[in-house]
Amino acid sequence: MGKKLNYGMIGGSLDAFIGDVHRKAIAVNENAELVAGCFSSNAEKNRSCGEHYQLDSDRIYTDYKEMAEKESAREDGIDFVCITTPNHTHYEMAKCFLENGIHVSCEKPLCFTIEEAKELERLAKEKELFFCVTYTYTGYNMVKLARELVMAGEIGEVININCEYLQDWMINALEEGATANTKIAVWRADPTKSGISDCVGDIGTHIESMVSYITGLHVKKVAAVLDTYGHELDLNANILVEMDNGCHGVFSCSQVCAGHANGLLIKIFGKNGSIEWHQEAPDQLLVKKKNQPIQIYNRGYSYIGGRADELNRIPCGHPEGLVVAFANIYQAFTNTIMKTQNGEALTASDKDYPDIEFGIRGMEFVTAVVKSSQNGSVWTEV
Amino acid sequence: MGKKLNYGMIGGSLDAFIGDVHRKAIAVNENAELVAGCFSSNAEKNRSCGEHYQLDSDRIYTDYKEMAEKESAREDGIDFVCITTPNHTHYEMAKCFLENGIHVSCEKPLCFTIEEAKELERLAKEKELFFCVTYTYTGYNMVKLARELVMAGEIGEVININCEYLQDWMINALEEGATANTKIAVWRADPTKSGISDCVGDIGTHIESMVSYITGLHVKKVAAVLDTYGHELDLNANILVEMDNGCHGVFSCSQVCAGHANGLLIKIFGKNGSIEWHQEAPDQLLVKKKNQPIQIYNRGYSYIGGRADELNRIPCGHPEGLVVAFANIYQAFTNTIMKTQNGEALTASDKDYPDIEFGIRGMEFVTAVVKSSQNGSVWTEV
Amino acid sequence: MGKKLNYGMIGGSLDAFIGDVHRKAIAVNENAELVAGCFSSNAEKNRSCGEHYQLDSDRIYTDYKEMAEKESAREDGIDFVCITTPNHTHYEMAKCFLENGIHVSCEKPLCFTIEEAKELERLAKEKELFFCVTYTYTGYNMVKLARELVMAGEIGEVININCEYLQDWMINALEEGATANTKIAVWRADPTKSGISDCVGDIGTHIESMVSYITGLHVKKVAAVLDTYGHELDLNANILVEMDNGCHGVFSCSQVCAGHANGLLIKIFGKNGSIEWHQEAPDQLLVKKKNQPIQIYNRGYSYIGGRADELNRIPCGHPEGLVVAFANIYQAFTNTIMKTQNGEALTASDKDYPDIEFGIRGMEFVTAVVKSSQNGSVWTEV
Amino acid sequence: MGKKLNYGMIGGSLDAFIGDVHRKAIAVNENAELVAGCFSSNAEKNRSCGEHYQLDSDRIYTDYKEMAEKESAREDGIDFVCITTPNHTHYEMAKCFLENGIHVSCEKPLCFTIEEAKELERLAKEKELFFCVTYTYTGYNMVKLARELVMAGEIGEVININCEYLQDWMINALEEGATANTKIAVWRADPTKSGISDCVGDIGTHIESMVSYITGLHVKKVAAVLDTYGHELDLNANILVEMDNGCHGVFSCSQVCAGHANGLLIKIFGKNGSIEWHQEAPDQLLVKKKNQPIQIYNRGYSYIGGRADELNRIPCGHPEGLVVAFANIYQAFTNTIMKTQNGEALTASDKDYPDIEFGIRGMEFVTAVVKSSQNGSVWTEV
Repeated sequence: MGKKLNYGMIGGSLDAFIGDVHRKAIAVNENAELVAGCFSSNAEKNRSCGEHYQLDSDRIYTDYKEMAEKESAREDGIDFVCITTPNHTHYEMAKCFLENGIHVSCEKPLCFTIEEAKELERLAKEKELFFCVTYTYTGYNMVKLARELVMAGEIGEVININCEYLQDWMINALEEGATANTKIAVWRADPTKSGISDCVGDIGTHIESMVSYITGLHVKKVAAVLDTYGHELDLNANILVEMDNGCHGVFSCSQVCAGHANGLLIKIFGKNGSIEWHQEAPDQLLVKKKNQPIQIYNRGYSYIGGRADELNRIPCGHPEGLVVAFANIYQAFTNTIMKTQNGEALTASDKDYPDIEFGIRGMEFVTAVVKSSQNGSVWTEV
Repeated sequence: MGKKLNYGMIGGSLDAFIGDVHRKAIAVNENAELVAGCFSSNAEKNRSCGEHYQLDSDRIYTDYKEMAEKESAREDGIDFVCITTPNHTHYEMAKCFLENGIHVSCEKPLCFTIEEAKELERLAKEKELFFCVTYTYTGYNMVKLARELVMAGEIGEVININCEYLQDWMINALEEGATANTKIAVWRADPTKSGISDCVGDIGTHIESMVSYITGLHVKKVAAVLDTYGHELDLNANILVEMDNGCHGVFSCSQVCAGHANGLLIKIFGKNGSIEWHQEAPDQLLVKKKNQPIQIYNRGYSYIGGRADELNRIPCGHPEGLVVAFANIYQAFTNTIMKTQNGEALTASDKDYPDIEFGIRGMEFVTAVVKSSQNGSVWTEV
Repeated sequence: MGKKLNYGMIGGSLDAFIGDVHRKAIAVNENAELVAGCFSSNAEKNRSCGEHYQLDSDRIYTDYKEMAEKESAREDGIDFVCITTPNHTHYEMAKCFLENGIHVSCEKPLCFTIEEAKELERLAKEKELFFCVTYTYTGYNMVKLARELVMAGEIGEVININCEYLQDWMINALEEGATANTKIAVWRADPTKSGISDCVGDIGTHIESMVSYITGLHVKKVAAVLDTYGHELDLNANILVEMDNGCHGVFSCSQVCAGHANGLLIKIFGKNGSIEWHQEAPDQLLVKKKNQPIQIYNRGYSYIGGRADELNRIPCGHPEGLVVAFANIYQAFTNTIMKTQNGEALTASDKDYPDIEFGIRGMEFVTAVVKSSQNGSVWTEV
Repeated sequence: MGKKLNYGMIGGSLDAFIGDVHRKAIAVNENAELVAGCFSSNAEKNRSCGEHYQLDSDRIYTDYKEMAEKESAREDGIDFVCITTPNHTHYEMAKCFLENGIHVSCEKPLCFTIEEAKELERLAKEKELFFCVTYTYTGYNMVKLARELVMAGEIGEVININCEYLQDWMINALEEGATANTKIAVWRADPTKSGISDCVGDIGTHIESMVSYITGLHVKKVAAVLDTYGHELDLNANILVEMDNGCHGVFSCSQVCAGHANGLLIKIFGKNGSIEWHQEAPDQLLVKKKNQPIQIYNRGYSYIGGRADELNRIPCGHPEGLVVAFANIYQAFTNTIMKTQNGEALTASDKDYPDIEFGIRGMEFVTAVVKSSQNGSVWTEV
């Protein structure tokens, strides 16, 4: 292994969930080191997190702009930054790091508006920087296999799509007297932090990104109905979709479906077969060819080739889990950065991370869904 | 056991699927005997079926009208008739038997139009006759339990509904050059026999009836998109629904989803919990109370009471299957007839069969769905 | 259809479980009619059951011997008898009907001793009568497929067997102070009625019969440990087996495993693959070829041929259930009787019911298991 | 976070599976750093692995004895060593590091004989050193919950145990002409490297350790039959067990069961209920109380307390996977070392790793199983 990359992090103090997953995923890859951070607006939390990771004290920043500038100026400055703060901060932060010549990995949804997303894309292109939007679930090994099977025509032309992403972590917000402030004191329910959508922005976009990733098709139109149950933003959504090949489908997402922890379920139907993948049992892929027995593909077996084989890290039957899925995304992203730094050519595998196009499509999808719901569920172009 | 009822059958010759299930279900109940029939327009098929069941030769009819009149005139005439022919014949047949004073059990969908359905209802009321529309799946034991739990408020107010009914038996109709005439030579794809819808009429109405039965809620509005894939009628449908309590949901049904044999899946979400039932694993009911472990109820255990206990026929762990579900419906329907003949009062259990209201709602649902799809998926009142 | 067969029943009064399943299964086949019976030693129960089935009053017998003799003497006497009483009565009853020239269908386990079983076999041969021992689960459609795949060498030479049959209906018998008399007032726990074994006799023999049926291999030796938990007979058993091809395996059966209703699970491992079948999800068969994705075969699909196709009664995805499995056994048994009466040749399909060989092997298996357990689990020849 | 621990590794070059999992697990915990190693007897592999981890060149050792001595002598020497080499080397290596005052984490099975295991125990005690034997699966979150429920008496007295650990990675070794040398050139099949058992030593001991961990019961006697299929060591085993509370059960393990990747399945039955856990779906625990619906506990929900809550790392519904299970073991082990170095008292949580007692019991179990099989499956004391 050559030199490790240096990276910094915005957000992700010690009590945060997703920032920690980013760090563990990168640690698992063993090719990048956390050297700088601005982990919290709370000075104490920020400091203690930096010390936890044994950062030099002058690289524990209280201001992300200062961090971008100073790191940019250093010889050993960070190669990329991970932005794991709430949505409303993404745009300004990402913009700032791009402007300072630093590659960006940013949580989803990317930002607040399509315009912001496109501005980030423009800037990244101009600066020749790479931009990863961490749509985690595209990193699972068997999702790679699903993509290859569908792309290779194994199920034929896609004719119907039926996906859901059901959670229940917000269900107590439906209790009498619960408000965003008291019972669900989370930023996701706050439009000033989440933007125009809670549920669709947070998890509906995962469905959209997964379908795009696996099928290569994009959502063309939506007809949606959102439910807020008295809150400001949507907690539940049912969405009809028309893809750019003309087929239809349905995306359902919810944060109030009792008994569903993180139930992302992808079902893609083609003229000759279908595939089915569940996030909660990620090492399996169901392949259903027409007029044949159903097949269960298990990660790690010799009958699996391609990218899923290339990325296989742990022998079959030993669950890889979420951190490894995340690590797969970072592996491609960091390979892309390293190889480019070294003047090496990029392979398809290197490019196999959700880039800013995923971020833009996410914004377009959320915008259209919210608009459709506001207009009586009328079909709305994405 | 007192005297058995006598019944007759229209359709259901020896090579037909659903007529046979009706007969087996009634046989399992052991309280009614097949004594007359008009099984096929093909004279040979009609005769051989009648002989198979050892009917008197003068009660093997070539014309259903003659059958209605003659049976009506007999002292020992049939108490009820089972209509198991294609849709386009239901209305005239049912009308004829009602006019002749004979109770009717009819396959779904009930007929072609809402008006026809209401005329049958009017006639049944006028003649004081009972009318069963065989929405089979309402007969499953654990569906009874689901209904009781939801009705008792165990999951709280219903806030979201997510149901699907996916099949694949028509998928070969999507092959290049396949037509309704050549590859799918079935009456369901023929509008002159099926009416305005194939897939929604055949299986979408099962979702509608199940949701009504379990929750007591009815569909108020639909926003639907149907896919015909070049055929005359729909083979696939994705439908947003609004129920009469204001909650939303989605019904998806299809005959072209590879790997799904008869995948009716009912998920009802409430403020305090949810229930989930799969037709292909009918002896189980999943109950998911919020903030609690998921519960799997298994048919036949001592912890199950109410109607599900009353109807339990085979010890737990021994699958009852479709015929018994059908038999449960017939048991209520025939009890209703018998008790009324004997001047006994009807209990809630006796009335626990899908009556003509289910048939009317089915017609209303199909009509609204087709209309919505034709009008760009606009919300359409049911 | 030609003339129906006439049959009689011993045991199976209206409150009995298994007798009713026999009757419903035969009713579903529509080729035999209940015309005589001796349903209970309780005169009132006997009479009311006979009247329920509208038997002629002189064919409701209070004594099975009288029934055997009188039916044997009648022109229209019964063609076969179903014996559904507790074990301790099987031998005398079966013997009596055989002696009177009547074919016998008898519940399992067949009797008390190997000698009795062999005497019944001798007698049946001498009288040229057919004898069915109703090992129900061999009748499931997908078990037929399992048999055909294994017999055709699809999984290669059998190298390991891992089967279990776990129930929990006796678990309350383990409570402090529970006795066979008070808490589990069932004949199965009573050695005078059950013979030398409760659990192994009742359900262990189902494993043995299924393995024999599917693989064609027979148990050669057993090393067993039985648990009685203070009761007279075994409620739990773990059994090592050696088959006649030299491979080993384990059979576990229990009536006290909480949460298992009727969990018969068959796993047969071969050099090239394995098969797995669960009684509680009987319409599926898992086929696991080495170095290939797992396959799920679903009953009723076009890719299924052979006996499983021949016996398929209800379209795929609509659970057939226990009664149909039973009906499959009776269909072969009654075809065998009818064709023999008509002088027609028997096909392999006609003979596809568990015959007296299954009954004898069951006795041999139980005897060896109990002996092994009594002798410190030493390997004991079957 | 205070100072990180330093650790070294024996074995685990870049192409090895389990060494890498150890490193990733420790990396995920972020509290120990790899600073020394002797990764391979192949000099090139050893060097490249050390360089990959950016070790000082003088801490990439070619001889483990030298490593033990030199690291022991350094001020900043390793606090513990991870031994991830084949079995035959464990004893000498572990002994050497203990003698040099270094804590040891060692792969299972611990060594070759009970005597060796006890000598290591004696030495660890004498030197006041900690010794972890990495029985991975005890680290899974829901296994902690299983243990707490069983220990708290939730399922009552344990009355039956039914466990299996089925794999298929050796199945190609059964092909005609395959030998340990040609087709399965792995050390596990080689008695000079594996010791007296392949399958039971490798995976049977996992069952034994899991049952001990969850129930607190230990295996008292075994009656076993092993199958070698022409190879030197066992590839398949079926084992009757008697636990020290007198209950019986069965452990089945195999490396040749087609379609089973890493199928460790634990079923513990008590007088009042049972628990069931599958390694391939580790975030769920099934709890089956008698006379109640089955319960599915999902990791990460608020209804889960105790150690499972304490160790929860990733929100519910996001699979944690094998690396996190491993990390849980290392977290307790490293906490134990750190706290002891700091003079802090150890809590039950700190001690919650499989210690040398697990290693000894594993040796005792394997020894008894092999002896029983050699002696005609006679019951053999552990």
